[in-house]
Amino acid sequence: MTVRVGVIGAGWIGREHIRRLTETVTGARVTAVSDIDVARAEEAAARVGARVFANGAGLIAADDVDAVLVTSWGPTHAGHVLDAIAAGKPVFCEKPLATTAEDCLRIVEAETAHGVRLVQVGFMRRYDAGYRRMKQIVDSGRIGEPLMVHCAHRNPTVPESYRTDMAALDSAVHEIDVLRWLLDDEIVSAQVVLPRSTSKRHPHLKDPQIMLFETAKGIRIDLEVFVNCRYGYDIQCETVGEEGVVRLPDPAAVGVRTAGQHSTEVLADWVGRFADAFDTEFREWIADVAAGNEATGPSAWDGYAATVISNATVEARKSGRIMTTGMKPRPAFYGGGA
Amino acid sequence: MTVRVGVIGAGWIGREHIRRLTETVTGARVTAVSDIDVARAEEAAARVGARVFANGAGLIAADDVDAVLVTSWGPTHAGHVLDAIAAGKPVFCEKPLATTAEDCLRIVEAETAHGVRLVQVGFMRRYDAGYRRMKQIVDSGRIGEPLMVHCAHRNPTVPESYRTDMAALDSAVHEIDVLRWLLDDEIVSAQVVLPRSTSKRHPHLKDPQIMLFETAKGIRIDLEVFVNCRYGYDIQCETVGEEGVVRLPDPAAVGVRTAGQHSTEVLADWVGRFADAFDTEFREWIADVAAGNEATGPSAWDGYAATVISNATVEARKSGRIMTTGMKPRPAFYGGGA
Amino acid sequence: MTVRVGVIGAGWIGREHIRRLTETVTGARVTAVSDIDVARAEEAAARVGARVFANGAGLIAADDVDAVLVTSWGPTHAGHVLDAIAAGKPVFCEKPLATTAEDCLRIVEAETAHGVRLVQVGFMRRYDAGYRRMKQIVDSGRIGEPLMVHCAHRNPTVPESYRTDMAALDSAVHEIDVLRWLLDDEIVSAQVVLPRSTSKRHPHLKDPQIMLFETAKGIRIDLEVFVNCRYGYDIQCETVGEEGVVRLPDPAAVGVRTAGQHSTEVLADWVGRFADAFDTEFREWIADVAAGNEATGPSAWDGYAATVISNATVEARKSGRIMTTGMKPRPAFYGGGA
Amino acid sequence: MTVRVGVIGAGWIGREHIRRLTETVTGARVTAVSDIDVARAEEAAARVGARVFANGAGLIAADDVDAVLVTSWGPTHAGHVLDAIAAGKPVFCEKPLATTAEDCLRIVEAETAHGVRLVQVGFMRRYDAGYRRMKQIVDSGRIGEPLMVHCAHRNPTVPESYRTDMAALDSAVHEIDVLRWLLDDEIVSAQVVLPRSTSKRHPHLKDPQIMLFETAKGIRIDLEVFVNCRYGYDIQCETVGEEGVVRLPDPAAVGVRTAGQHSTEVLADWVGRFADAFDTEFREWIADVAAGNEATGPSAWDGYAATVISNATVEARKSGRIMTTGMKPRPAFYGGGA
Repeated sequence: MTVRVGVIGAGWIGREHIRRLTETVTGARVTAVSDIDVARAEEAAARVGARVFANGAGLIAADDVDAVLVTSWGPTHAGHVLDAIAAGKPVFCEKPLATTAEDCLRIVEAETAHGVRLVQVGFMRRYDAGYRRMKQIVDSGRIGEPLMVHCAHRNPTVPESYRTDMAALDSAVHEIDVLRWLLDDEIVSAQVVLPRSTSKRHPHLKDPQIMLFETAKGIRIDLEVFVNCRYGYDIQCETVGEEGVVRLPDPAAVGVRTAGQHSTEVLADWVGRFADAFDTEFREWIADVAAGNEATGPSAWDGYAATVISNATVEARKSGRIMTTGMKPRPAFYGGGA
Repeated sequence: MTVRVGVIGAGWIGREHIRRLTETVTGARVTAVSDIDVARAEEAAARVGARVFANGAGLIAADDVDAVLVTSWGPTHAGHVLDAIAAGKPVFCEKPLATTAEDCLRIVEAETAHGVRLVQVGFMRRYDAGYRRMKQIVDSGRIGEPLMVHCAHRNPTVPESYRTDMAALDSAVHEIDVLRWLLDDEIVSAQVVLPRSTSKRHPHLKDPQIMLFETAKGIRIDLEVFVNCRYGYDIQCETVGEEGVVRLPDPAAVGVRTAGQHSTEVLADWVGRFADAFDTEFREWIADVAAGNEATGPSAWDGYAATVISNATVEARKSGRIMTTGMKPRPAFYGGGA
Repeated sequence: MTVRVGVIGAGWIGREHIRRLTETVTGARVTAVSDIDVARAEEAAARVGARVFANGAGLIAADDVDAVLVTSWGPTHAGHVLDAIAAGKPVFCEKPLATTAEDCLRIVEAETAHGVRLVQVGFMRRYDAGYRRMKQIVDSGRIGEPLMVHCAHRNPTVPESYRTDMAALDSAVHEIDVLRWLLDDEIVSAQVVLPRSTSKRHPHLKDPQIMLFETAKGIRIDLEVFVNCRYGYDIQCETVGEEGVVRLPDPAAVGVRTAGQHSTEVLADWVGRFADAFDTEFREWIADVAAGNEATGPSAWDGYAATVISNATVEARKSGRIMTTGMKPRPAFYGGGA
Repeated sequence: MTVRVGVIGAGWIGREHIRRLTETVTGARVTAVSDIDVARAEEAAARVGARVFANGAGLIAADDVDAVLVTSWGPTHAGHVLDAIAAGKPVFCEKPLATTAEDCLRIVEAETAHGVRLVQVGFMRRYDAGYRRMKQIVDSGRIGEPLMVHCAHRNPTVPESYRTDMAALDSAVHEIDVLRWLLDDEIVSAQVVLPRSTSKRHPHLKDPQIMLFETAKGIRIDLEVFVNCRYGYDIQCETVGEEGVVRLPDPAAVGVRTAGQHSTEVLADWVGRFADAFDTEFREWIADVAAGNEATGPSAWDGYAATVISNATVEARKSGRIMTTGMKPRPAFYGGGA
C-alpha cells in the first residue's frame, strides 16, 4: 500500500522532503501540497502531480491524504498538528512541535485523549547511524554508567536572519533531543556561558555559546554551539562513562597527502551530514504509517521537552543564571512513571 | 513512469536486488521472476506480487518487462544478455558478463550492431562514495599523474565452495574493474605472487594471493586478496601519484575507549560495506532506463575486459609467469580510438 | 661545564629526576641529596655518588652545588626556594611553587629584589611536542583569535590518599599553567560543575569534576578532570578559534586489526605520556644554567598564578559559585604592563 | 665510567653523531676524530675538545679511544672495522658494513675468530618505538603467523647525486634489515617492478621502484621506494598475519581544522622521523660498551645480509628477473643452526 502524504509548507525543507518522499523513499506518494504562498505550492505540487490546497485544514481533511507532513513556519505548527489529531491522521511535524510550552501541552493532551500516538517530530539525529551505534554501546553497558557528554555543533556560517536565540531554539535543540534519547534521561536545568564572540559574524549575534545541561540522574552535558566557525559543518559528541568513552565518528572522507599535509575534507553543510538520517527517518515513518502502527519516532512529549528545554536555555542566557526547566512529569501515555 | 523489471535468478543476490528494487529504490517494480528452481522463483515473486516465468527467454519477451536484471549462475549470463539485446531491452547483468572472452565479445558485437548501449554490468564499487571521491581527486590532478596503486581485499572467511581461481574471478575482479575506471587506463599484464598460505583455510585453497598488474600507461598495481583474514571485511586502496597520495577511507565507525584500548569496529562482511553503493547503482540504472537514456554504468566492454584480465590472472598464478592479457583494442562504440 | 645539581627530596619524583639528570640529560651531575628520611636520601645519593645533606639549607649552601632541584613535600617548597634565591643559585621547583598565594608572593618579591630570574617551576607540559606545536599554530594566527578551549585530563585511577581538592591543586594545575602559556592570557575566574560521581572511586571523592575558566580576553575553557576513568591516561585539548580548530594529538600507537576491531593502545599512566617533555624540560634548564642564562621556563609568577587559580577553583567547587581569582597585576619584572 | 669514542668520518652524519654523543647521550665523550678532509676533522674535534688523527688506524690505536664509530665513505668501512676488531675494540659502523659481500664476510670471519661480538651496524629502525611495539605484537602471536608485509619508503626529494641503485643500497636497506629482525626470518629472493617513473626527478633516475622479497618461511614483502614523492617523508609498514594486521603509526601530529580541511602535518625529512631511534640506538650501544657487554644491536652478520640482499635487489632490477640472494648459511656464532 502506498502512503499518500499531504505536505503543508513548500519552502526549502518542504520541497526537499517532497523530493525525498518521491525519489528516495519507497511506499509513499505526495498527493497534496499547501503553502501560504500559493504559487510556491503550485510549483512544488506540479513537479510530483499533487493537488494544491488553499490551506492546511483542507489538505488534512482530503480523502487522498493518509498522512500529513508539516514543514511550514514554526508558529503555525501547533494548529496543523491539532487538526491532524482531530482528523485521526498520522502527522510528521518538523521541529519545533510548537513554539510555546503551552501549545505543545495542548497537542500532548489532544493526542492522549485520542489514545493512540499519531504525532512524530522531525528530530532526525536519532536516525543517524553514528548516534544509533553510540546508543547501542551506551545501552550495552560497555562504557558503564554515563557521567558526562561533551558536544560541539558547528556551522560554517549563518544568514543574517539568524538571531542569538536560535542557537538554542534551532541549533542546540537537536542535541537536546538526541541526548535525552541517547541517555534515556531528562534535562532538568540549563546554563549558558558566553565566550567572547567571534568577529566573523553579524554584529547582533552572540556566537559561540557554551550551554551546560544537567539531567535528572546528574549527568552533565556541555555543548558548544558555534554557527560561524568558518571551516565547515562539524558535529562532535563524546559520552564519558564510568568505564570508558564512546565518540561519534567524523564522516568517512578520503585522505589526501600532498605538500606536507595529510588532509581529509570537512563537510561544508549539514545537508550531506544528515542526508542518510533523513532518509531513514522517513523510511521508518512511512513503514509505520503503512503498517498502521503507532508512531515510534520522537513523540509529542519529546517535542514538548525540546521546546521547554530550549526556551529555558534562552532564558538562562538572558539572565546569566542556571534555569530549571520546570518541565511537567512525563505522563504514562508517553512512558512516564505517573 | 515506473520501470517494470524482470529478474532472472532468485538466489541470494537476486532476492536481495528484488528487495532493493521494491523497498529502497523508487521508480521501479519487479513484475517478473524466473529461476532454474521454480519454487524459489515462486517464493520470491509472491513476496512482491510478480509473475513467475519458466525461463529467462519468456521473461525477457514479456510485455510487462521493461528491463531485465540477470543474477543467475555465471555461465548462463551470456545467453540471457544476448536475448535481452535481441529484444531491445535494457539489461543489468551481475558480474561476470560472461565467463569466457568469446562470449563477452559476442555480446559486445551484438550490442554494437544494435547501435545503442543496453547492457550494464554489476560492478558496484564505481558507485561507492569513497571511490567516487578518489576518482574526482585523481582526475583533478591534485596528486599528479598516478604511478602506483596499492590495494587489499580481505574477507573474514569464505565457504568451502570457494576455489583458488575465485580469488581472481570473483574477488579481484572488483578491483580490476574499479581501477580501470579510476585510472582511465587499461590493464595489460598480470602476475601472481603466492605467500605461504594461511593455516586457517580449507586445504585446497591458496590464500592469500598478491596480484600485480601493469597498465598501458605503466602504472603498477599491487593487490592483496586474502579471503580468510579472520578479523573482518576490509577494503584498502591507495593511489600514489607524482605529487601526492589519495586513500580510500575506512567506513565511519564509533570510537570506544575502554580497558586500555581505543577501538573502532571493522565490518563483518561486504554487505554493509557496499550497501549504499548498490543502492546508488540501481537508483542510477533505473533513472537511466526510465528516462530512455543509454546505459551509463560499466559497459559490455568493461565486462569483457574484466573477464579477460581476471582469466589472465588465473593463468598467471597457474604458470608462475607474467601474462599479458591479449585484450582486443577498444572499439569506437565504447569510446576507443579505433 | 657540567652543572652540579643538589636535589632536595628523594621521593619517587626526586629519584626519577636524579635518574634523568644522570642517565638522560647530558651536562649535569647530581652531587648532593637531602631528604627528611635520611635513609632514603642515602640510598638515592649512593646510586650516583652524591653527598647526603641533613637538610635543604646545608645542601643549598654547599660549594659543589651549582643549582638546586626541589622535589620535597609541597608545603616545604617555599622555604627552599627562598633559601636558594638568598644564595643566588638557580632553583628548579616542582609544582606547586608554594601552597599559598602569600608564600608565592614572598618568592616573587625576593626574586624581584634579586633582580635576575633564578626560579623555574616544574610545569612540564610546556615542553611537550604536541602543546608546543599547538602554540606555534595558535600564535601563527592560522586558526584566528582563540575563543574556547576544551580539555580533558583523565587518569585510570588514583590512590586513596587523593582528596577531592587535588583535582584542582594537583591535576588541573597542569592545564591551568599550560593554557595561560598557550593563550598568552590570564585566567580571571573559575566555576566547578559536579556531575554525579563515578561509583568506581573512593567514597570520599568527587570525581569527575568539570572546571570552567574565563580569561581576561574572554576566552572560555572547560576542563574535565576525571581521575578514575579506568580505561587509561588520556589528555585531550582542543583550541577553537575564529577560523579553525587545533587539537592535541593522541600519542602515536601501533594499530592492530583483529577479531572485528581496529585498536590502538591508550597509555596506562602519565609517565609515558610526558617522559619526553620531562627530558626536554631538564635539558633546557640545564643548558640555561650552564650558560649562565636567566631561567626561561615557567617563572615564579607562573607558580603564583597557578596556585591562586587552583585555590580559587577549590573555593568555587566548595561554594558552588563563580570565583574570581583576585590575582595581583603582573609586575614588569615578569613581563607585565605595570 | 665514561666511554671515550673515536669517530672516523666527520661528514654530516658524523658530526650529527658527535653532537648526539656529546649533548644527548650520557656516559660518552668523543675524544678523537679523523677525516680524509683534515680541516673538517679539526673543526668537528675543536667543538668537543677531541684530538684529531691523520687516519683511522691511528685513531683506533689511541689509548684514549675505548670504542670506534665509523661514519666515513662506504667503501672505507671494511678496513676500519677490521682494524677495530684487530685492536679488540667495540666498533659501531654506519651502514653499509661493507659494500661487497666478500668484505662483509672478511669482517664476519675476523669477528668470529676474535670470539666476542665487537661490531654493531647502524640500522636505527630497530630502535624506533613503533617498530619495537610492532615486533612485540608479532612475537606475541596476537596477529598469528605473519604472511605478508606491505611497506612504503618515501622521501620528498633526493639530491642529483642519488643514483638508481641507491634505492636498494641506501633506502630499501633499512627495510631489509628491520624486516629480517621483525620477522626473525631470512630474505631469500628479490624482484623489482618498475612503474613509469615520476616526471619530477633527475632524468637518470628510475623512481619509484617496487621491490618484492620472499623469505625462507614464504612470507612475501612488497616495498615501494619513492624518493621524489614530493609531499614529505613517509614510512609505512603493515604486517599481515593469519589472525590480524599490525601497522606502524604515523608520527603524532597536531590536527588542524580550517577552510574545509582537517589536516595533520607530514614530516619534511627523515631526521625528525628517526631522531628518537638514533638516540636510543646510541644510548644502548654506549651502555653495552660501558658495561663491557657484547654488542646486542645489528651484527656483522646482519650487515652481511643487508649488503647481499640489497645487491641482489640491484641485480634483480637490472636483469628484470627474480634473483636469489645466494646468502651463506648463518654461522652458529651469529645464532645460526650450523
